[in-house]
Amino acid sequence: MLMTDIIEKKRDGLKLTNDEISFVIDGYTKGDIPDYQMSALLMAILLKGMDSEEILQLTMAMMHSGETLDLSPINGIKADKHSTGGVGDKTSLVLCPMVAAQGVKIAKMSGRGLGHTGGTIDKLESFPGFNTGISEETFFKNVNDFGIAIAGQTADLDPADKKMYALRDVTGTVPSIPLIVSSIMSKKLAAGADVIVLDVKQGSGSFMKTEAQARELAENLTRVGKMAGKKTVAVITDMDEPLGNAIGNALEVKEAIEVLKGEKQGELLELCLTLGACILTESGIAENDAEAREKLLAGIADGSALEKLAQLVEGQEGDRRAVFDTSLLPMAPVQYEAICDFRGYVNHISAADVGLVSMHLGGGRETKESVIDLSVGVVLKKKVGDAVAAGESLATIHASSLEKAKEAADKLLACYTIVPEPVEKPRFIKGIVR
Amino acid sequence: MLMTDIIEKKRDGLKLTNDEISFVIDGYTKGDIPDYQMSALLMAILLKGMDSEEILQLTMAMMHSGETLDLSPINGIKADKHSTGGVGDKTSLVLCPMVAAQGVKIAKMSGRGLGHTGGTIDKLESFPGFNTGISEETFFKNVNDFGIAIAGQTADLDPADKKMYALRDVTGTVPSIPLIVSSIMSKKLAAGADVIVLDVKQGSGSFMKTEAQARELAENLTRVGKMAGKKTVAVITDMDEPLGNAIGNALEVKEAIEVLKGEKQGELLELCLTLGACILTESGIAENDAEAREKLLAGIADGSALEKLAQLVEGQEGDRRAVFDTSLLPMAPVQYEAICDFRGYVNHISAADVGLVSMHLGGGRETKESVIDLSVGVVLKKKVGDAVAAGESLATIHASSLEKAKEAADKLLACYTIVPEPVEKPRFIKGIVR
Repeated sequence: MLMTDIIEKKRDGLKLTNDEISFVIDGYTKGDIPDYQMSALLMAILLKGMDSEEILQLTMAMMHSGETLDLSPINGIKADKHSTGGVGDKTSLVLCPMVAAQGVKIAKMSGRGLGHTGGTIDKLESFPGFNTGISEETFFKNVNDFGIAIAGQTADLDPADKKMYALRDVTGTVPSIPLIVSSIMSKKLAAGADVIVLDVKQGSGSFMKTEAQARELAENLTRVGKMAGKKTVAVITDMDEPLGNAIGNALEVKEAIEVLKGEKQGELLELCLTLGACILTESGIAENDAEAREKLLAGIADGSALEKLAQLVEGQEGDRRAVFDTSLLPMAPVQYEAICDFRGYVNHISAADVGLVSMHLGGGRETKESVIDLSVGVVLKKKVGDAVAAGESLATIHASSLEKAKEAADKLLACYTIVPEPVEKPRFIKGIVR
Repeated sequence: MLMTDIIEKKRDGLKLTNDEISFVIDGYTKGDIPDYQMSALLMAILLKGMDSEEILQLTMAMMHSGETLDLSPINGIKADKHSTGGVGDKTSLVLCPMVAAQGVKIAKMSGRGLGHTGGTIDKLESFPGFNTGISEETFFKNVNDFGIAIAGQTADLDPADKKMYALRDVTGTVPSIPLIVSSIMSKKLAAGADVIVLDVKQGSGSFMKTEAQARELAENLTRVGKMAGKKTVAVITDMDEPLGNAIGNALEVKEAIEVLKGEKQGELLELCLTLGACILTESGIAENDAEAREKLLAGIADGSALEKLAQLVEGQEGDRRAVFDTSLLPMAPVQYEAICDFRGYVNHISAADVGLVSMHLGGGRETKESVIDLSVGVVLKKKVGDAVAAGESLATIHASSLEKAKEAADKLLACYTIVPEPVEKPRFIKGIVR
């Protein structure tokens, strides 16, 4: 089999066989196929597409490029969640304890953040002492004992995806449904859960700019998950403005705790109830959506969801007291208000740009080697649809110095579009694809 | 400027600016842009196309990637010819002396053969002592003194094309009109001639399988040539069967000499008259096609065209006697007839496969490092439209051993399609694009 023939076949719009796809992934992972051939094939896939059989085969080949996690020693239903990435996305911090409190087992591998989006692993490190690099033994033990563990992805899971993603990033081949689906699902399948829920973001702050694109991605993700024998649901949600209010690691942890304490309503709670209900019904723990939501809300009301977060933190060497007393979390020395000097209504908040403000404050990585400041970030006080009075604050900047805070405040004001006429609150949950 | 942005722009079907194209060619030639980004861009160009301005700019940028030849010290009109490549294509060996005998200056850089097609440089080395690596000084002196020189391409001409062609070859990005046009025309423009004639091959033995594809290529080639200020004509010719009768280096030289002596009619002579008439009329040496053909035929009749070949050979240290006595050319020890054991009419001869028979006899290079045997090859006795009697020979195999000859004869018979009903001779000249 020759790589050149395979490239030409896809270039000409033909379907690749299972053997050809396996040959490519195997050869590329081993280093037998050079980057320059792989990038030509990736561009041909982006422009000519793949059918659902090809996407499944690509996903399976990538999944088998490295180790896979066998979760069968863990009793009960194992669930996993993935988000296509957004700004202020602290969903896992709320959702995982909420469903774990209902008896679902969460054995989650999670990534670090790069660029304007943050990673769950980084956020969890806001808890003093929290260890994301626990051994596989501890990981399994914690899932069995507490029902929950969230660790950094081990190096041996899905090496094909790591190599391909790095190449796609510099060759203009990121926005391709077959390549996005195989990248996400190969990792999720390698991680071994029975139920997979996917949060597909749509809007200016995400890859999928339109609802049609987001729906196409959601349908492809669930189809591949089901073809691979997993219960898979995708929820399409808005990422035109940042999710919730906080952007920045410790600030997001604080917001997550507020939701788990029942102190905060809004889109973040709604998202976690929606995703959580999908998990509980797919797992058979609830009969229907209404029953599932009732259970999840009861878990907040009786404190069991918050206690589950404390167990997660404690199980990975963190200080559980910080869950109940958030003053123990890292706090930036400077708080500074970004004041709007005219009145109106918030029409748009550029999620990507707010992410960059937080990154430049030190809260995100510009390169893989960057060291991040867990305490800094932004807390939005006004969201789309809110009225703003002249002289009112749009957001609080949490910074390491007054100078940085002022600079960030200026940039943050530029992220807002404020109009004179009232604006309707956007629809947050755009659809569920089962 | 970022290469990733340029790849994404072309991927999305947008037009690249002159600055972007120059940035790509400059960066790739210098090694600042890696192969894996270039191959992604090449695939995007192949699938999304380029308009005529982009093709011109790509051509000019590639031309300026290295040295260019300044032919202005040479008096008179300088002409150059290029063929898109075929089997048995000895056209330059006939055409160049024919037009040089009429006062056109031929300063030609030519390549070696690879795979199933042969190179003019290899063929010329059939003349004992012939030196294709003459100095630039000798090259210019010969063109001035004799009106003709044909040398191997110097390493400094169009390095971008060399690097890009090697990459295209292994990434499925060869058959793209913008990439073929820029590859051909950048080299021709760098070589400095005033008049450029292009022989665009069409048929199973060439890249362009259909007449529409060949015409599109021809139109793009001439458009770029004219936009660059050169007199440019393209002739579309058949390459469904090999050109003429001989395939193999010394055998093709012998056939060329037969045409120059006026001993041989047929498609090779017709092609050289057609291309030659284009050169003479574009150069202003003839008023019209009829006058040009008359002059070219007179040059054959009075021996001046043959003498011009002798001057070319002598000027590059070769033995001029071989032009007049072809028994001095390399000759294979074994001649063997490929006998057809049934009667019928030749319907098709696979040019590419005949090229491979000659290559396997030792007449062509399997890799760049192969050493070739100038004496071996095939002389076709029957061409498309010819009647064949049972027991008649289709071709003579010239081989280094009887064993190799027999093997080649079997393969050669498989190149022929013979049918019971009479077959019309194919149209050889398919069109002229000025």
